[in-house]
Amino acid sequence: MKPADIKQSVEARWNSLSKPAGSLGRLEEIVARLAVQQGKARPELRRKSLYVFCGDHGVTAEGVSAYPSEVTRQMVLNFAAGGAAINVLCRRMGIRTVIVDAGVKGEPVPGALAGKTGEGTRNFALEPAMTKQECERAMQIGAELASEPDDIRGVGEMGIGNTTSASALLCAFTGISPREAAGPGTGLPAAGVAKKAEIIERALALHRPNAADPLAVLSQLGGYEIAMMTGFLLYSKAPVMMDGFITCAAALVATRIDPGVADYLLYSHRSAEPGHTRMLAELKATPLLDLSMRLGEGTGAALGISLVEHALALYDEMATFEEASVSSKRIEDSGGLG
Amino acid sequence: MKPADIKQSVEARWNSLSKPAGSLGRLEEIVARLAVQQGKARPELRRKSLYVFCGDHGVTAEGVSAYPSEVTRQMVLNFAAGGAAINVLCRRMGIRTVIVDAGVKGEPVPGALAGKTGEGTRNFALEPAMTKQECERAMQIGAELASEPDDIRGVGEMGIGNTTSASALLCAFTGISPREAAGPGTGLPAAGVAKKAEIIERALALHRPNAADPLAVLSQLGGYEIAMMTGFLLYSKAPVMMDGFITCAAALVATRIDPGVADYLLYSHRSAEPGHTRMLAELKATPLLDLSMRLGEGTGAALGISLVEHALALYDEMATFEEASVSSKRIEDSGGLG
Repeated sequence: MKPADIKQSVEARWNSLSKPAGSLGRLEEIVARLAVQQGKARPELRRKSLYVFCGDHGVTAEGVSAYPSEVTRQMVLNFAAGGAAINVLCRRMGIRTVIVDAGVKGEPVPGALAGKTGEGTRNFALEPAMTKQECERAMQIGAELASEPDDIRGVGEMGIGNTTSASALLCAFTGISPREAAGPGTGLPAAGVAKKAEIIERALALHRPNAADPLAVLSQLGGYEIAMMTGFLLYSKAPVMMDGFITCAAALVATRIDPGVADYLLYSHRSAEPGHTRMLAELKATPLLDLSMRLGEGTGAALGISLVEHALALYDEMATFEEASVSSKRIEDSGGLG
Repeated sequence: MKPADIKQSVEARWNSLSKPAGSLGRLEEIVARLAVQQGKARPELRRKSLYVFCGDHGVTAEGVSAYPSEVTRQMVLNFAAGGAAINVLCRRMGIRTVIVDAGVKGEPVPGALAGKTGEGTRNFALEPAMTKQECERAMQIGAELASEPDDIRGVGEMGIGNTTSASALLCAFTGISPREAAGPGTGLPAAGVAKKAEIIERALALHRPNAADPLAVLSQLGGYEIAMMTGFLLYSKAPVMMDGFITCAAALVATRIDPGVADYLLYSHRSAEPGHTRMLAELKATPLLDLSMRLGEGTGAALGISLVEHALALYDEMATFEEASVSSKRIEDSGGLG
């Protein structure tokens, strides 16, 4: 079935269900989108996964985060033990959680899928975060993960310092200033945010990133988890629910490499991280939720998947006008009556 | 425990959990609010109900709806048979659904809780919708329903013509013009919306509602389902998740009678019905969701309850910094580093 035919078929089913046409708003839209992405008018949500890509960032040496770098590893262990926010949400919703050590400092993290290309990136205020080979290797591992059979998948991340990397990528691809792109991340005070913007400014002056060469930009300013996600998005043929600021940085890189990637993306929420709004505009995305969340891990993506599941249940299980013997006939617009 | 102590205790627990302080945004807020409403720092969500109040409106004789009045009864039968949108959502979420025939035309609707005070209201373009006695009787039944033991409850409604009633109430209590308050409801074209505004204009000129006497206003312009919800809200001592435009009209009346009612209310979504935004401002409410829904039935409320459940699961099940051996120590703000 062609995308246009699938869309039309989904719309026809929504309009046959016992409710005013269009009255479920974005829930109707999202099922249409899911159907087109899955290539069938009756999409399924049996196999759900959430991939949490984790990596460390050399730029933390510049003091760009409220938390020390060690917290990345500690949190990955927390994911592996099932104690983090993303674990709670995925457990409730029957979502398989895949924790990936994309580049955490030190030994491979026990309990996480081993995908380490390096033990944290280099400090991009001083040199490229990754070599092109390291970056491509991380992308390759992401591409391999993308072949898992999922009906829908969420992406999330963990990496102390990664809002600095995402902000730098946003600047490189859109030309906005580091002051507009930098935010508090895990909770920097105003002075810290200003300092973070300066570091990004310095990195941009050093690397002079060329937006027309997204792979080079990614290796200069990205992170292992962002590179792996980029590879994952480039090769995903299942719908991907995006999370917040960092995952959208990967979407920015991936869509610059291949604009067709956008067809598979769904957007869960608008993060409280200020740069996310600019990034969503760049991606022409209107997310489902706006709850001032800024945790990452895929928590927004999990809530987004929850909404998609509610929407699909309505689409699958509601009675039609005919089944419910409800009149679908509107009053004729005669005699001036509405 | 005093509300301020409960709030502080909830905040302390959120801050002990393995995530940056405040990073779950409105999910943190909503648990604090729920805790204060339930009077305990560890709130529960075991007993969940959704009350759908249904009634017919005499003003439909003026042609204010896209659908004929008969659809109210047909949809109530659909609720009773489990085929409507609200049934699908409540089934998924383990929410008990209580369908109340508050004033549907004709015989009591089989399968719905009998609470009929009249068989549809009178046409308020010509005379008061209800007598004060009828209105108070409907409120009384609502008050009795409010004594059911719920940890959280949603409210919803069905009634062809009831956006006209809700718009008229909005005008009466806020002084805005019918043109600002009237919207398409189930799907009126522009000419129909203009006609609807005229009918409301005429009704306001006829009744000259006195905002200082909310009971009188309710009987003049309300509906049985709105009156019953008003009584329900006035006597609910459990948190109530509001739905869209119509349920908020009941909240408007209830808070005018007793401003303390506001303490028990939660707001699920911003409806696509344009008057809802004005109504939410009047109620000083910022809803959780904005999905362009305009179905009613309690569908927005059910989705709101789903979010509250996710939030409480996080609050209950996440590991603390200590349990997860994650450093909760922020980097000292020294040497100019953030």
